Amino acid sequence: MSTHPVLLAGRWQPSTAPETFRADNAATGESLSETYPTSQWSDVDAALTAAAEAAPLLRQASPSQLAKFLSTYADRIQANADAIIAAANAETALPITPRLKDIELPRTLTQLRQGASAAEEGTWSLPVIDTKNNIRSHHAPLGPILVIGPNNFPLAFNAISGGDFTAAIAAGNPVIAKGHPNHPSTTRLLAEQAVAALEVAGLPKAAVQLIYHMSPDTGLRAVADPRLAAVAFTGSRKAGLALKAAADKAGKPAYLEMSSLNPVLILPGALRERPDKIADEFADSALAATGQFCTNPGLTLLLAGKETDTFIAAIKQRFESRKFGPLLSKAVCSGLKESIRTLASAGAKVVTPAHPEPWSMNPPVNTLLTITASQFLDDPHTFQTEAFGNASLFVIADNADQLAQVLSHLEGNLTGCLYTSTTGEDDSLYNRLAPALRRRVGRLLNDKMPTGVALSPAMNHGGPYPSTGHPGFTAVGIPASLRRFSGLESYDAVRANRLPPTLQNKNPINGDKKAWRSIDGRLTQDDVAS
Amino acid sequence: MSTHPVLLAGRWQPSTAPETFRADNAATGESLSETYPTSQWSDVDAALTAAAEAAPLLRQASPSQLAKFLSTYADRIQANADAIIAAANAETALPITPRLKDIELPRTLTQLRQGASAAEEGTWSLPVIDTKNNIRSHHAPLGPILVIGPNNFPLAFNAISGGDFTAAIAAGNPVIAKGHPNHPSTTRLLAEQAVAALEVAGLPKAAVQLIYHMSPDTGLRAVADPRLAAVAFTGSRKAGLALKAAADKAGKPAYLEMSSLNPVLILPGALRERPDKIADEFADSALAATGQFCTNPGLTLLLAGKETDTFIAAIKQRFESRKFGPLLSKAVCSGLKESIRTLASAGAKVVTPAHPEPWSMNPPVNTLLTITASQFLDDPHTFQTEAFGNASLFVIADNADQLAQVLSHLEGNLTGCLYTSTTGEDDSLYNRLAPALRRRVGRLLNDKMPTGVALSPAMNHGGPYPSTGHPGFTAVGIPASLRRFSGLESYDAVRANRLPPTLQNKNPINGDKKAWRSIDGRLTQDDVAS
Repeated sequence: MSTHPVLLAGRWQPSTAPETFRADNAATGESLSETYPTSQWSDVDAALTAAAEAAPLLRQASPSQLAKFLSTYADRIQANADAIIAAANAETALPITPRLKDIELPRTLTQLRQGASAAEEGTWSLPVIDTKNNIRSHHAPLGPILVIGPNNFPLAFNAISGGDFTAAIAAGNPVIAKGHPNHPSTTRLLAEQAVAALEVAGLPKAAVQLIYHMSPDTGLRAVADPRLAAVAFTGSRKAGLALKAAADKAGKPAYLEMSSLNPVLILPGALRERPDKIADEFADSALAATGQFCTNPGLTLLLAGKETDTFIAAIKQRFESRKFGPLLSKAVCSGLKESIRTLASAGAKVVTPAHPEPWSMNPPVNTLLTITASQFLDDPHTFQTEAFGNASLFVIADNADQLAQVLSHLEGNLTGCLYTSTTGEDDSLYNRLAPALRRRVGRLLNDKMPTGVALSPAMNHGGPYPSTGHPGFTAVGIPASLRRFSGLESYDAVRANRLPPTLQNKNPINGDKKAWRSIDGRLTQDDVAS
Repeated sequence: MSTHPVLLAGRWQPSTAPETFRADNAATGESLSETYPTSQWSDVDAALTAAAEAAPLLRQASPSQLAKFLSTYADRIQANADAIIAAANAETALPITPRLKDIELPRTLTQLRQGASAAEEGTWSLPVIDTKNNIRSHHAPLGPILVIGPNNFPLAFNAISGGDFTAAIAAGNPVIAKGHPNHPSTTRLLAEQAVAALEVAGLPKAAVQLIYHMSPDTGLRAVADPRLAAVAFTGSRKAGLALKAAADKAGKPAYLEMSSLNPVLILPGALRERPDKIADEFADSALAATGQFCTNPGLTLLLAGKETDTFIAAIKQRFESRKFGPLLSKAVCSGLKESIRTLASAGAKVVTPAHPEPWSMNPPVNTLLTITASQFLDDPHTFQTEAFGNASLFVIADNADQLAQVLSHLEGNLTGCLYTSTTGEDDSLYNRLAPALRRRVGRLLNDKMPTGVALSPAMNHGGPYPSTGHPGFTAVGIPASLRRFSGLESYDAVRANRLPPTLQNKNPINGDKKAWRSIDGRLTQDDVAS
């Protein structure tokens, strides 16, 4: 079978790459039949040129056109969902139902439609009008964005259909999507619908381009290239830090979702009050998608005591009885084994499985490890090794002081959860510990596990370094996620007819939407008073 | 005379530094009598510890307390203005009137009072409430901020009273101010009022600390230190890039205002229509404060022709007849001479002064240089050397294509100006060139020179790299400037009584202010409907 072409400047073109790859059927480990190119610089170079040419055109596209593209794209994905989901199932082993069809597909469609709505309405760009000084500002598109998608959400975080893609396009930027090599056919089927939707919306053909795979060096070269405005990435810390270094050196923004242990503190009153409920919630969250979520609870902090012993036994029982699916790829499997071995070698006790050692299993069964807080404090770096998959580490503290010390050593995380009793008996401990946890996470939860990342305007799927590269931005949550792909642009005494529509005296109606604008300090959907 | 103490943890303490410095009287070049320490790590280390301890306390301070501090501080600066201005005049040679007393002092006070108002009101933090999912988010303080002030605005950009300081405090962060060694007595007199204002407001004493000077290495070590959350800097590109590298490596935000040529395009119709007016505006802007503004117009693009010859002659005449003041320091003088020599060595023609060579003068007289667009295009890097002071470079293009090419080689700048005729004859050229200029600048102006940076909520005193380190943020313009010193924080199912006041159902009244909040997609000052 011939190698699939890449999508450059609106056309499916044969890649110049001599190297190719095939994805595996994640359930069986066997290679799938489709062959895809590992693009070299010449493909990326062509994509950058086309994207740079498309950027000023896309900047002048109307909000309604951007919205039309995103909503048409959503409709077309929906109409072709069966084929797309079948490909994703084969490539990732994620189940068709409920995961792909009932959860991830609707999430993807909702996200695209929320992006359409935000693009059309325009409040995301924070328009500000100062009539006294005749200065006006808003957030405007940045230029070509490289979106690098992860392995674990073939639809909702796919580089060509996920949250970063949606945000970058909705903000008016061309996207060069770099698919994940674990699911190229899924990505291709999505891209076909994107191409059709671009045409319906009348957007520049190079607004969406697709490269299936490239070497790390080629990716770093793309990030450094002056034609690229910014990069968005979801994946491992190692790859993310390399991209960050390249982007930092070139002076451009990098929005990175790199890694997170998502610490969970369960205080003793809560454990005494509702042990089974919390054990169920924890097992559900820790083992969802075989633990392959960015917000998987990887590190749980507990106070030593009878209720904690009972809780550990309850989790052990659940981990042993719960099924686990195939992992997303051989790389995920070997990474997981390596991380478990690292934790165990540093002294973590493997509570379950009793034998054999989980790092000798393919894939490892659900794995629960424990350490004491003293152990953690002796080597906080190693014990914050992320074990991406169905493994989780409990840290047992002797007292509240130790808990506070552990918290003070936590790296930046996407989320942090605190479980407390409903009777108030944990409240003084909550009040002592919550501020320290708050500062180290993007999203703080109460009595709730971290794995549900709602598509909410109040969501923060971001957090302090090294969970991301900047604490002020979120990858999920429209409209805020759009602002990552924008620059602040001010117009000082610019003649009225030369202003962008959103900053003109008359608030334009895009579809049936009107932006909220700050006019002389007041937020309003009105026109500037004449 | 003994060495002045530094301000650490709320007390004026003797520095441990063996090294000291004195500022010069900028008008005479002679050393002033006061002696200040060049702090070593131990001072900075103490400041970081105190700031880290103050951060959680400051986070819990009420918005009204932050506002009280800022407004009290403004009042106290005002009450002590004569002494502060006298010190600034001696240290910088900037004239008392109108500059320091009638322009910079009121600007500083207005900025502090705008910061007070923004802190109290809270809309800056973009509160978002999603009642359906019970998720709420806002921008919250980051932690200790190192503010490094520049030489050219001893009050309005001073590390302890300027825009970065005001924004960092208004957002709820402790500040470690690193003053500029050219004006330590000004900084000290300001700091004394800050200390008194902290006490009035009941804020933690370490919320404001002052170090007069430190070596570059000590500064980089401070930026890398985990106790520091972010750094703000206004100054040279070289120092800014070193700070950026250190902050990038440590994964923390750096807000840098580094350098800018502020290109001005004057189209031929405008030059024919109002040559004298534009010549006056240009000379006023280029020579204001002897050219020592961040937004000084350093690079002017013109089309070859009779009107351009006339314009050059008009500027030459004005440059020769206008007085110029002493420069801010010997370092500024030697930097300016070096830059002029670099431009001339690369082939720029010195239109004025006729002789001697300006780089042999102390200080140089007002200097006008010209090159052709071809020369520029042969070495765009060298011809974008910033000559900070009373020197300006004109680039003469043969045709519109060359102008477009020059624009395409421009680095990121704070501002860009376009002058056009009022009759419409320049409009097609404007339409062709403006988009390219727009993408390279933070603030686009029409028929107006760039040096007035209004304290407007629509201001962008920022721009694409390397004028700053991130295109999405502004150093001037409240409330947007506050968000630089914040992280996005989301609360997911957090119990009502544990939410920060701004995110509770009832919109708190701070003073007589209420924040605008996005509640279920609608911006409102109302409470959450019960």
